Amino acid sequence: MIKIGLLGLGTVGSGVVTIMENNKESIRRKVGTSLAIEKVLVKNLDKERDLDIDSRVLTSNIEDIVYNPDIDLVVELIGGEEPACQYIKEAINRGKSVVTANKLVIAKHGTEILKLAREKGVQVSYEGSVGGGIPIIRPLKESLAANRIHEIYGILNGTTNYILTKMTREGRKFQEVLAEAQKLGYAESDPSSDIEGYDAAYKIAILASIAFETSIDISSVYVEGIDGISVDDIELARELGYVIKLLAIGKRCERGLDIRVHPTFIPRSHPLALVSDVYNAVYLHGDAVGDVMSYGKGAGQMPTGSAVVADIIQVARDIHSGRVVTPSLDTTIKHRVVDINEIENSFYLRLQVRDKPGVLAQITKVLGDNKVSLASVLQKHRLTTVVPLVLITHPVKEQFINKSLKELKKIEDVVSIDSLIRVEEESI
Amino acid sequence: MIKIGLLGLGTVGSGVVTIMENNKESIRRKVGTSLAIEKVLVKNLDKERDLDIDSRVLTSNIEDIVYNPDIDLVVELIGGEEPACQYIKEAINRGKSVVTANKLVIAKHGTEILKLAREKGVQVSYEGSVGGGIPIIRPLKESLAANRIHEIYGILNGTTNYILTKMTREGRKFQEVLAEAQKLGYAESDPSSDIEGYDAAYKIAILASIAFETSIDISSVYVEGIDGISVDDIELARELGYVIKLLAIGKRCERGLDIRVHPTFIPRSHPLALVSDVYNAVYLHGDAVGDVMSYGKGAGQMPTGSAVVADIIQVARDIHSGRVVTPSLDTTIKHRVVDINEIENSFYLRLQVRDKPGVLAQITKVLGDNKVSLASVLQKHRLTTVVPLVLITHPVKEQFINKSLKELKKIEDVVSIDSLIRVEEESI
Ligand SMILES: NC(=O)c1ccc[n+]([C@@H]2O[C@H](COP(=O)([O-])OP(=O)(O)OC[C@H]3O[C@@H](n4cnc5c(N)ncnc54)[C@H](OP(=O)(O)O)[C@@H]3O)[C@@H](O)[C@H]2O)c1
Ligand SMILES: NC(=O)c1ccc[n+]([C@@H]2O[C@H](COP(=O)([O-])OP(=O)(O)OC[C@H]3O[C@@H](n4cnc5c(N)ncnc54)[C@H](OP(=O)(O)O)[C@@H]3O)[C@@H](O)[C@H]2O)c1
Repeated sequence: MIKIGLLGLGTVGSGVVTIMENNKESIRRKVGTSLAIEKVLVKNLDKERDLDIDSRVLTSNIEDIVYNPDIDLVVELIGGEEPACQYIKEAINRGKSVVTANKLVIAKHGTEILKLAREKGVQVSYEGSVGGGIPIIRPLKESLAANRIHEIYGILNGTTNYILTKMTREGRKFQEVLAEAQKLGYAESDPSSDIEGYDAAYKIAILASIAFETSIDISSVYVEGIDGISVDDIELARELGYVIKLLAIGKRCERGLDIRVHPTFIPRSHPLALVSDVYNAVYLHGDAVGDVMSYGKGAGQMPTGSAVVADIIQVARDIHSGRVVTPSLDTTIKHRVVDINEIENSFYLRLQVRDKPGVLAQITKVLGDNKVSLASVLQKHRLTTVVPLVLITHPVKEQFINKSLKELKKIEDVVSIDSLIRVEEESI
Repeated sequence: MIKIGLLGLGTVGSGVVTIMENNKESIRRKVGTSLAIEKVLVKNLDKERDLDIDSRVLTSNIEDIVYNPDIDLVVELIGGEEPACQYIKEAINRGKSVVTANKLVIAKHGTEILKLAREKGVQVSYEGSVGGGIPIIRPLKESLAANRIHEIYGILNGTTNYILTKMTREGRKFQEVLAEAQKLGYAESDPSSDIEGYDAAYKIAILASIAFETSIDISSVYVEGIDGISVDDIELARELGYVIKLLAIGKRCERGLDIRVHPTFIPRSHPLALVSDVYNAVYLHGDAVGDVMSYGKGAGQMPTGSAVVADIIQVARDIHSGRVVTPSLDTTIKHRVVDINEIENSFYLRLQVRDKPGVLAQITKVLGDNKVSLASVLQKHRLTTVVPLVLITHPVKEQFINKSLKELKKIEDVVSIDSLIRVEEESI
């Protein structure tokens, strides 16, 4: 029997307990022995639990788990940076393997944790940290191991994808849809990490570190959220043949790695354009395999529980058979994350301009002087003096766009610059 | 260093050699030691090879590999049932682990081979046998191990999917598109195993045996190919909101398992409906994870090579670290594959009837008497006396449809029954 110490009995922790109970027999067959949840760490011992769990296994003292010599495997599901990170390291130091779904801790401290695990001869698995139930971390490490991965594109945050889907389908405003999503439990009461793109950034940093065998400094990842996306932009995207998604991108580029998260125009015909609601997907290109996509529920109690229990089964199987499988370090290769200013993209640009002759000429001159050439121009004629002007550029370095914007603002007949959204088209 | 004996240097074998050369360094890091292709078995030693390979490693004598004590790992890529199966068993008997992409051998003899491997303490991996480069077998065994899998739907044959896609997009006839596909190398000169559905049947049998932890008798799998699909059916499917795909199905059902391959109407809005050309996809439903789909190139030199080399890396890593990982038997549970006559489906039925009053009433009476009720009726009025009549039924057992057809044929004004195609709608 393999004894497990569970840290956290919230959304995912309860899911793990439920799945282990529901599929007990099949799990026992796969591990080769039975699994027992020996102790569960919670914050509040007096909280009412929906779950049918013996209250004697609950504890609010971490020492009951990390200092417990009977426990072979610690499953961390309390979330947040601390004390989660400290508990994980403590468990490893005591020779216990660890399973976690904590993207924040893995994105920030993964390299250090994996190094420690290697020294101590234990395993650390974190399938649940990216893409909920979608098999992605293990497939990337194992099934695609023969490939040189060139690019990864992910829709990695369910909350923002739900909001963008609703805005697209129902033509409703960001704030309104966000409020509804919170009411329905699809968005947290503090949704900032989702909305501002940080959740997706942690996840792409984890995927990129595996795909590119390196360690990614999370602070070097460019992040932009969806709070600036208007229904007008969504509608114009549609007219132009695109949808807007919060895309997490990891690419090899000439001078290092290109890792970023931002709202992105993607062609409507691309498989990622069809990933709606709370679904997540990872689309990647490897030199041998070509294009591959995985799709499924990126969060939630049971999908995330599925990934965590899969990790538990693998690690427990190894512990049971006496195997020592230390995690391979994903940091063999040194790569630089290239500054966003150096990255080339096409851009969608929406401005309000006065409907006068010569305005477009002035604008294109400024752009041309800054090496920005246009792929398409959409001018909407209205019965007003101020009209929207929509431009899509050819690929150009971000710094030139920024310089152009500064100069465009100085043109008298440019009333406002309302949106600047990157377009992913070339390699996708 | 791990020494490999490669059996076969055709399409996939050459891909494996190329990938191992291209990504040598990264593979060495992942395995922990370097890999060397010690010997390669071919049929014809004098054949011109595109590949840059030392001719001294080539042999036409299997004993140079299976009796070679230096070789740790045998990679079987000669294809066909024999001698491939015998060579695999011989290698296992000599204590060598095996990697293969041979769906025929695994579907027919997998249980026996895995049992033998278990006895001899070696590994057998076969990721390349299903879905080409798409990670599916390992994810099913490992990443989804926490789930009770309810259903698997696969588009598992690239040739037929290419043909159906062309027929759908260009309104061209089966024979014409097949001939073109053969000219372009997308279909074999003897395409029968693809066209008639057997290739997909081997693959779904392999997936089902893993998902349902059982051994599937391939002869109990119902198989129907795409050669009977007409452009009229494709066009009518479109009008009714469906596309026609050669679908491989594995489901749990009340009295056992429902495993089959046949052309199927699937709703146009379903993610599988968008899987076009030579792409493959596997869509499944697990109790915890919900719906998951994986998508990618289902065949070809490099995608299949990617899967084979991934297996080589995993097995070599285990051999190198001295681990003994015997394959778990997928046959723990006894399941019966239920006869197709007992399976419930909705059906699409296309008939030619004389355009006379009372014909529809006669037809619906026969159907009603046989427990077949109708979900929709599409009658095309033409300036002729014989008109097409299209019916879609509610779910009903196959035996009742068959009985109805016999009786419908006896109605004088039913000129012909042109098509009967299953509709997948309820659970998909
Ligand atoms: N929810 C999802 O859909 C999802 C998806 C993917 C990954 N994840 C990740 O999974 C992890 C857990 O998320 P969750 O949604 O399950 O969180 P949650 O519902 O907030 O549950 C947290 C649990 O941890 C316990 N806990 C929190 N701080 C603690 C402390 N300092 N000491 C002891 N116990 C403490 C809480 O105890 P009480 O019960 O006593 O309050 C609660 O049981 C996070 O890393 C998250 O990012 C979640
Ligand atoms: N092609 C694909 O896209 C694909 C995709 C998935 C799975 N697979 C599977 O991969 C396997 C290999 O397929 P393939 O397309 O690479 O086949 P292939 O191109 O026909 O190559 C077969 C190779 O095996 C050698 N060979 C055949 N019979 C032999 C024998 N009796 N003794 C010694 N050598 C023999 C041939 O030698 P010579 O070179 O001397 O003729 C040739 O090198 C099959 O099981 C197939 O089902 C293929």
